[in-house]
Amino acid sequence: MDLNERRVRGIEFEKNTVFEIIKGMENTAFNARRLGYAGKLFRKMVENDYFIFLTLSGAMIPAGMRNIISGMMREGFIHSLVTTGANIVHEVVEAIGGRHEIGSEDADDIELANRNVNRIYDVYVSQNAFEMVENFLSPIISSLDGALSTPEFLRVVGGKLEDEESFLRIAYEKGIPVFSPTLHDSIIGLHLSIYRKKGFFIDFMKDINHMLDLCFQKKPIGVVIVGGGVPKNFTLQAMLLADGFDTAIQITTDSPQWGGLSGATLSEAKSWCKLKDNADEVTVYCDATIALPLLYAYLLEAI
Amino acid sequence: MDLNERRVRGIEFEKNTVFEIIKGMENTAFNARRLGYAGKLFRKMVENDYFIFLTLSGAMIPAGMRNIISGMMREGFIHSLVTTGANIVHEVVEAIGGRHEIGSEDADDIELANRNVNRIYDVYVSQNAFEMVENFLSPIISSLDGALSTPEFLRVVGGKLEDEESFLRIAYEKGIPVFSPTLHDSIIGLHLSIYRKKGFFIDFMKDINHMLDLCFQKKPIGVVIVGGGVPKNFTLQAMLLADGFDTAIQITTDSPQWGGLSGATLSEAKSWCKLKDNADEVTVYCDATIALPLLYAYLLEAI
Amino acid sequence: MDLNERRVRGIEFEKNTVFEIIKGMENTAFNARRLGYAGKLFRKMVENDYFIFLTLSGAMIPAGMRNIISGMMREGFIHSLVTTGANIVHEVVEAIGGRHEIGSEDADDIELANRNVNRIYDVYVSQNAFEMVENFLSPIISSLDGALSTPEFLRVVGGKLEDEESFLRIAYEKGIPVFSPTLHDSIIGLHLSIYRKKGFFIDFMKDINHMLDLCFQKKPIGVVIVGGGVPKNFTLQAMLLADGFDTAIQITTDSPQWGGLSGATLSEAKSWCKLKDNADEVTVYCDATIALPLLYAYLLEAI
Amino acid sequence: MDLNERRVRGIEFEKNTVFEIIKGMENTAFNARRLGYAGKLFRKMVENDYFIFLTLSGAMIPAGMRNIISGMMREGFIHSLVTTGANIVHEVVEAIGGRHEIGSEDADDIELANRNVNRIYDVYVSQNAFEMVENFLSPIISSLDGALSTPEFLRVVGGKLEDEESFLRIAYEKGIPVFSPTLHDSIIGLHLSIYRKKGFFIDFMKDINHMLDLCFQKKPIGVVIVGGGVPKNFTLQAMLLADGFDTAIQITTDSPQWGGLSGATLSEAKSWCKLKDNADEVTVYCDATIALPLLYAYLLEAI
Repeated sequence: MDLNERRVRGIEFEKNTVFEIIKGMENTAFNARRLGYAGKLFRKMVENDYFIFLTLSGAMIPAGMRNIISGMMREGFIHSLVTTGANIVHEVVEAIGGRHEIGSEDADDIELANRNVNRIYDVYVSQNAFEMVENFLSPIISSLDGALSTPEFLRVVGGKLEDEESFLRIAYEKGIPVFSPTLHDSIIGLHLSIYRKKGFFIDFMKDINHMLDLCFQKKPIGVVIVGGGVPKNFTLQAMLLADGFDTAIQITTDSPQWGGLSGATLSEAKSWCKLKDNADEVTVYCDATIALPLLYAYLLEAI
Repeated sequence: MDLNERRVRGIEFEKNTVFEIIKGMENTAFNARRLGYAGKLFRKMVENDYFIFLTLSGAMIPAGMRNIISGMMREGFIHSLVTTGANIVHEVVEAIGGRHEIGSEDADDIELANRNVNRIYDVYVSQNAFEMVENFLSPIISSLDGALSTPEFLRVVGGKLEDEESFLRIAYEKGIPVFSPTLHDSIIGLHLSIYRKKGFFIDFMKDINHMLDLCFQKKPIGVVIVGGGVPKNFTLQAMLLADGFDTAIQITTDSPQWGGLSGATLSEAKSWCKLKDNADEVTVYCDATIALPLLYAYLLEAI
Repeated sequence: MDLNERRVRGIEFEKNTVFEIIKGMENTAFNARRLGYAGKLFRKMVENDYFIFLTLSGAMIPAGMRNIISGMMREGFIHSLVTTGANIVHEVVEAIGGRHEIGSEDADDIELANRNVNRIYDVYVSQNAFEMVENFLSPIISSLDGALSTPEFLRVVGGKLEDEESFLRIAYEKGIPVFSPTLHDSIIGLHLSIYRKKGFFIDFMKDINHMLDLCFQKKPIGVVIVGGGVPKNFTLQAMLLADGFDTAIQITTDSPQWGGLSGATLSEAKSWCKLKDNADEVTVYCDATIALPLLYAYLLEAI
Repeated sequence: MDLNERRVRGIEFEKNTVFEIIKGMENTAFNARRLGYAGKLFRKMVENDYFIFLTLSGAMIPAGMRNIISGMMREGFIHSLVTTGANIVHEVVEAIGGRHEIGSEDADDIELANRNVNRIYDVYVSQNAFEMVENFLSPIISSLDGALSTPEFLRVVGGKLEDEESFLRIAYEKGIPVFSPTLHDSIIGLHLSIYRKKGFFIDFMKDINHMLDLCFQKKPIGVVIVGGGVPKNFTLQAMLLADGFDTAIQITTDSPQWGGLSGATLSEAKSWCKLKDNADEVTVYCDATIALPLLYAYLLEAI
């Protein structure tokens, strides 16, 4: 315990850029300090040639975070993505011309249902968008055979998408593995169960093996965890067999005292050896729709 | 909007049983009122012969909620369970004689790691317990062939367990389907990837079809949602193709305003037609380790 | 760090009373364990003749917790109350025949405003109730002179109330000091500013001196903190000059990681010497409308 | 309910300034959209010559937000401050040369106590700092006579401070009223109770009258609420007698479903007529240490 080491000085607003403001937050407290430190760690990972996983839970694509994922892939800020089936569905919606609309969390949900509009907190998406996804995916699914991991399946999908802003397309072009260990827990899961030919199936065991290969790379390995859930657990768990992450950033709105994984501290992960015992780590308790754009803008400026 | 309809009277403590106290909470406010109403809805579902799903996320088995799940199955309070791979792992740990220990959330995680003790908030589990699971499961896994749904796989496991308190065993005996759509996202997933023979795989598409069959039953269908995550989404999603749940209870510590599924209101689910538009529903914002035992004790007394 | 000391056994439901269930929670985890431990500590304080403060923030009286406060005073479970001006206002509303109604958090607030109905989450209170308070209090206020502490002022008020369920009346009868360090931050504050004669004022410095006297008693001193805010801070702060509380229980829905007092751990209070360094303490993260009735019923049964 | 009105487009990162990023958040969802809208409303208030209150709860001064408050006063972004006694204490600490240190929330609190270091989450402050405050304030307190409102008392204090970064000094210079309706609930309260001469007292009724005068001004009136508590309630409550705020922004980490004031929606305040029924309002659920610097930087750039 070091007392009197460093003064809480606050942020200097003279150089008013995202990078300077976020960097200045290191001299404050609470979650601002955590956010400042997260920026520093992310930058360190990128500049030191880490292999960086991004795990992404929560409705981040409907919430307008899509171009950040695309941008992070393009800029080389992340090297693998692990996300929910739902985020994959909504990525495809956008990539094939569907849209998410600005809505209200106070809407009359029964009226929305009658209009075939689905609500995700304050975002609307028309059921029509899912029909577009079905029309796009069903011939792809029907054409497949054998056992595919989700990165293999999503690579096929990415190759068929023409939207240059699509992160599935960018992942396809750049050879970035995109895992979706809950792909079946989404509308695509329903499509898979309807349209697949006998002989084709998603083999999640191949996902595990692929993930293990990535975790055994001979370079420092980092992880940026957005929002807990299976993407967090699936990624951390792979390290049970490897040496543990070298650096980790977590952005969550959950709290430790409920005992669940999404709010669990990264220190807890050290007891499982999912992080190395000397790993640098920080958790930012903040809505990721705020923290993620700030970290991205920070990196764009810093690197 | 009905004003002046019913007075906030508070709880009467004369008849001091769990049932009376929880029932009395209907005359209060905030989450006590929600808990009282959840008891009422759960009782209504049981008494009116609903088919009731329990979705269970969060480390509920390590946290000592195991005998509640067993008890609910035995008493006929639930008819299907949908839970995480982690809860299945910890159920097997207990069923084969392993144990979870009362620990501290303030522990030194690196010391724990050095002692091969893993921490789940304030619960400890020795790595040795997972080796026991591996020794128990590996011959079972190696003996299997073909495509199994998770209920089929867990039925095999349940049949091998001798512990009478095991909910997997009770489910086996009573023919209760136990789904684990994230089974691969657990230590069992690692075991599956290591020990399975060529030809055996978990086919989550069969889970989807099985779930759909259950959702198309000609009786009222209810759901008790503990803690969000994939178990919640996977169960609700099946209703996209069916008519929607008739009654729903949700226990969560997450909040709506973060926009994620785990905190999403059940009203939001109505916009997706996952609940019928006239479905009775209530969300209790409370740690499930508190709310679940209370609801179980309430039902034991009421029914 | 004691490993393998005590098994997470879960609750036994054979003896299905509130006391047995809450006691059983000590063998679980997360907030159930905390609640079980809170019951144990509260019982210990009562049985060992502690002087016990209850600090009460949040709209607990509108929420139907009033008879618990009255009951705790009557049973000797608490010996001083520190609460908000708002809770005092709503206590007077109930004591003079006004009422709180069961409402809905989804109400149309503008329609409510037009009907002169004020909303507190899912509770309604008519503006008429506040007029009743004004009519009741204005002659009392006008009759007073000199500098009164809030316990002195509230003792006058309690002496005028005839409702036997009124905790202000019970406090008056039993000589229990009721502090309201934010009395002016309430509708009573507005009444005080309108109706007081020159020469009468609430002197909060007398509150501080009175509180210090209580903190210097030669017996063990405990505190049950419901919900943070000024009642928490004001009570803990008095111990800056005394020796610190011997035992403390905190019930809150706030979280430590936001850095505010309402979610601050009781360990943090030890760095300020507001708690003795060896004080037993526990925080239960739970809506107090759930935890408080349970603890009260637990004590009724245990003592 | 307007469907399909506006697309969730996400943020454009070409013009990478705080203003552009926060403005871009209006095209996203969840709390990013709320933050973007808060920026827009704050700017509207400043540009349209509103009288703007800032209510400030939580340990914002220890957390390094002090120069933002000073800056907002200097720039004319706020015209009255309502804050806790604690924030006033820590402002004086900084203004007279004391300091807050970067600490750790995982510290050993008993060791800190032994070193006379007090902890506020991850900030340390030496007890010595409070002795400095006592030495500074005691002669001021001893010199005062009669009944002073907190703005009057704090004006005296501000006039004695020489630090140009002190917001109490700036308030003194610019005639900005600083209210602290919980001044007695702080270490200054202890000092007041010790050092005041007979005849001097803080008269909070004068605070109420002063606040009412400000609320009756003939110009649009707005409020920026940081963190609930008494500062929020005291400020909103004054509008019970006036016409209600025209515009309101709230930054909180609390949630509506716990029923307390700090998490209460601004819509709820409309049922009390504390906000006009057509008032623009937005709540940002975010740690204020993150949201406040961003809004300040946004305004510096926009205006």
